[in-house]
Amino acid sequence: MLERIRLERLKEKVTTAEEAVKLIEDGMVVGSSGFTKAGDSKVVLPALAERAKTENIKITLMTGASLGHGTDGKLAEAGALKKRMPFQVDPVLRSKINSGEVLFIDQHLSESAELLHNKNLPNVDIAVIEVAYIDRDGSIVPTTSVGNSVTFAALAKKVILEVNSSIPEDVYGIHDIYQAEDYPHRNVIPIVAPWNKIGRKTIPLNPDKVAAIVFTDKHDSPADIAEPDEKTSAIAKHILEFFEEEVRLGHLTDRLLPIQAGIGKVANAVLTGFKHSNFYDLTMFSEVLQDSTFDLIDAGKLSFASASSVTVSAECYDRVFGNLQRYRDKFVLRPQNISNTPGLIRRLGIIAINTAIEFDIYGNVNSTHLGGTKIMNGIGGSGDFARNAYLSVFVTQAASKENKISHILPMVSHTDHTEHDVDILVTDIGLADLRGLAPRERAQKIIDNCVHPDYKEELQSYFDRARERGGHTPHLLEEAFSWHIRFNETGSMKKA
Amino acid sequence: MLERIRLERLKEKVTTAEEAVKLIEDGMVVGSSGFTKAGDSKVVLPALAERAKTENIKITLMTGASLGHGTDGKLAEAGALKKRMPFQVDPVLRSKINSGEVLFIDQHLSESAELLHNKNLPNVDIAVIEVAYIDRDGSIVPTTSVGNSVTFAALAKKVILEVNSSIPEDVYGIHDIYQAEDYPHRNVIPIVAPWNKIGRKTIPLNPDKVAAIVFTDKHDSPADIAEPDEKTSAIAKHILEFFEEEVRLGHLTDRLLPIQAGIGKVANAVLTGFKHSNFYDLTMFSEVLQDSTFDLIDAGKLSFASASSVTVSAECYDRVFGNLQRYRDKFVLRPQNISNTPGLIRRLGIIAINTAIEFDIYGNVNSTHLGGTKIMNGIGGSGDFARNAYLSVFVTQAASKENKISHILPMVSHTDHTEHDVDILVTDIGLADLRGLAPRERAQKIIDNCVHPDYKEELQSYFDRARERGGHTPHLLEEAFSWHIRFNETGSMKKA
Repeated sequence: MLERIRLERLKEKVTTAEEAVKLIEDGMVVGSSGFTKAGDSKVVLPALAERAKTENIKITLMTGASLGHGTDGKLAEAGALKKRMPFQVDPVLRSKINSGEVLFIDQHLSESAELLHNKNLPNVDIAVIEVAYIDRDGSIVPTTSVGNSVTFAALAKKVILEVNSSIPEDVYGIHDIYQAEDYPHRNVIPIVAPWNKIGRKTIPLNPDKVAAIVFTDKHDSPADIAEPDEKTSAIAKHILEFFEEEVRLGHLTDRLLPIQAGIGKVANAVLTGFKHSNFYDLTMFSEVLQDSTFDLIDAGKLSFASASSVTVSAECYDRVFGNLQRYRDKFVLRPQNISNTPGLIRRLGIIAINTAIEFDIYGNVNSTHLGGTKIMNGIGGSGDFARNAYLSVFVTQAASKENKISHILPMVSHTDHTEHDVDILVTDIGLADLRGLAPRERAQKIIDNCVHPDYKEELQSYFDRARERGGHTPHLLEEAFSWHIRFNETGSMKKA
Repeated sequence: MLERIRLERLKEKVTTAEEAVKLIEDGMVVGSSGFTKAGDSKVVLPALAERAKTENIKITLMTGASLGHGTDGKLAEAGALKKRMPFQVDPVLRSKINSGEVLFIDQHLSESAELLHNKNLPNVDIAVIEVAYIDRDGSIVPTTSVGNSVTFAALAKKVILEVNSSIPEDVYGIHDIYQAEDYPHRNVIPIVAPWNKIGRKTIPLNPDKVAAIVFTDKHDSPADIAEPDEKTSAIAKHILEFFEEEVRLGHLTDRLLPIQAGIGKVANAVLTGFKHSNFYDLTMFSEVLQDSTFDLIDAGKLSFASASSVTVSAECYDRVFGNLQRYRDKFVLRPQNISNTPGLIRRLGIIAINTAIEFDIYGNVNSTHLGGTKIMNGIGGSGDFARNAYLSVFVTQAASKENKISHILPMVSHTDHTEHDVDILVTDIGLADLRGLAPRERAQKIIDNCVHPDYKEELQSYFDRARERGGHTPHLLEEAFSWHIRFNETGSMKKA
């Protein structure tokens, strides 16, 4: 293990997680590695959760995105979290956020690092970063994600490193570490294609800031892979047919443009759909690489993928990290303020595919809240991509819970993406191409193409009656949330 | 006049507006110059409105932004508009949009050109572009705005040029004409400071596409300059004090960062406030330059301003365009897909100050709709800037119409900017610094600092009762729009 500390003088910093965690004090701001369960702290944050069971310690925790191993839940359960940002997916933490016990800031994933560098957030007191090894100059080699670790390493007053010996040392080189200059001296980020590498292979770190080093050999939490089902397959089919038509019309070539796909079942189904398509030489410029990415690489369909993390099943993990020589020129991991930066998304012309919780007849999208109040996960990078994409696609099922919930509503109960940022909406029922349409046209197209049959008539009636009252975006404010309210009262959005 | 057509063979294209407008056919897509009343078509579009009085002709009209001289209203009144994008401010057109007679697409101003180049909108059949003169190579020199004219000139099948002899020919050189490459070959836009000029001085145009040339000497419609009043002065004071504090804290220097200011009274009041401040060597990277910009240049406070148009009073117009040698190294006009491009806004670190119609207790902003249905103007560039800015500031008066309307509400009736994109809210009552705050903290800060006293108690009651019901973003859906509904019913948001 010790050979993973290649800077001799740091070897004396090796300690246990229980000792290391004593460096964290009540009220501190802690910045930790970890992005959609990949490359998170495996022992220090869990040790903090243990400590918080018996001791009054509450921190502000910033990460890349979500953590694995239920760590967010353990921390929340133990009362260790005062504030959390910028993303989470944990059911225990979620319930504490919704009850008001934990304060959560739901941030565009490109922005957390910006906010820290710009001093728009309190500085990080201590960083906890998982690394594959520490290089001879004290710089560090990250593992399965980069996230915000470059910023945490640069700004934190102290750093705890978790050296993970389960990560092969030949991950060296799969990361492209670049930090934009602070204002007013920021320069161009010189990426013009997904495969451009513009930075270093290791994260710069002043060795004097390293306060503790701990060892672990724990793997990332594996991704749950849901096989495509009837609905996700239908959604994927609609999207692929749409792309094929765009190629026929000469709007796109059969290489398409770099793809971003949000995490989850639908994204996996769409990417899986490419396997048996005529598209070729595809690329990704995304946040997270899932199993489907590596399946497409193996199938010879995808030539390069750029992201901030690899979040895959145990099988895929072994396949990729056990055979890095096969994949190392096929993908790169970047800091999330590069993978998600608005300028690159527009410059590269990304096709962005993200999941909605619900959308409304005008194409406004709710990605985060149930019933307008309770948060599920967070906006993640969907806003970074949707606003600046070449094409912004949102997907959801038309109805769920025995069709007691319609995911297309008169008005969304919470807006994360406005109609200005939504080009294409897709459900298992069908696809609505909203490009070049005014709100009243958007509404009719969405009702015609996307809504579950059980709700179509009532939604049409809402739109018709609203239209009679007039307006650029006709609504009946007194009825706009009636479906949500009905669901809260009766357990179904359907009329009795 | 004819000497303004420096390419000999184009002189034969000179005709009258009445003749030129015959080139426009029913159903066509027309792209026209004009951005916030600057550099619009002074004779061809008005002639189209005349023609449409007696003839059935309906077009889709795209511009840079709003037009002057009531042209939008005349076109709408005559029934000449089927569809209009991406922005407007005309009362007659507005009422036709709200009644559904004219379809309007409210677009981020950076995106219209992108959508055309990407073939996500139908191509432009004919362009109508105001120019100062036609150069010897057939390229054209724009006037007081650039807007989307570079894109229209490149993509339109035919072009009508309006040569405006009231514009001095020495405007040559105040424009920086740059068009990003189409996908997938787009390159870096090499601007790292507001004063960088990266392009040509004239707009490329294939002379074979020029179908008609008409002459005019009409000036732009002058901007209405509203002197700062008690409320706008109070808002400006809060913002300036905030900036001073940021300088004291070392977050900014007294040069600040490049400023974007939306059009209107408040922006003018803020900029006027800088005149007597300690800030110096200020810069702007904005859409529109108003009187206050040139006042600040004259006062020696502002060293450079970049935008897409100059929209000023008659006095200021004469001052600037009559003395271009004094101002020509102090400002530049760019295409709006450059002035507003997300990547540059983040790269330069813009301080964005925009006007809200209303905002809610969580900091979501409505910039466009009255009562959730009727549009006022449009989102303009506020979304381009707010999302990507270093600091995103929104301003509005706390209450209006004898305080019968509160501009801070339980929930906005239409969302243009989500809480993720709003850092600072300011009313005449006070300023709420929302950075680093979770939704429940944002709500209390907004209620404490920004709300008019007449509405404070009821808004606090809403928040308190919503909080009891729980949620990351507590709301009472059945009450969320009760203030809007009460106003519709009684003419006041106040309880009876």
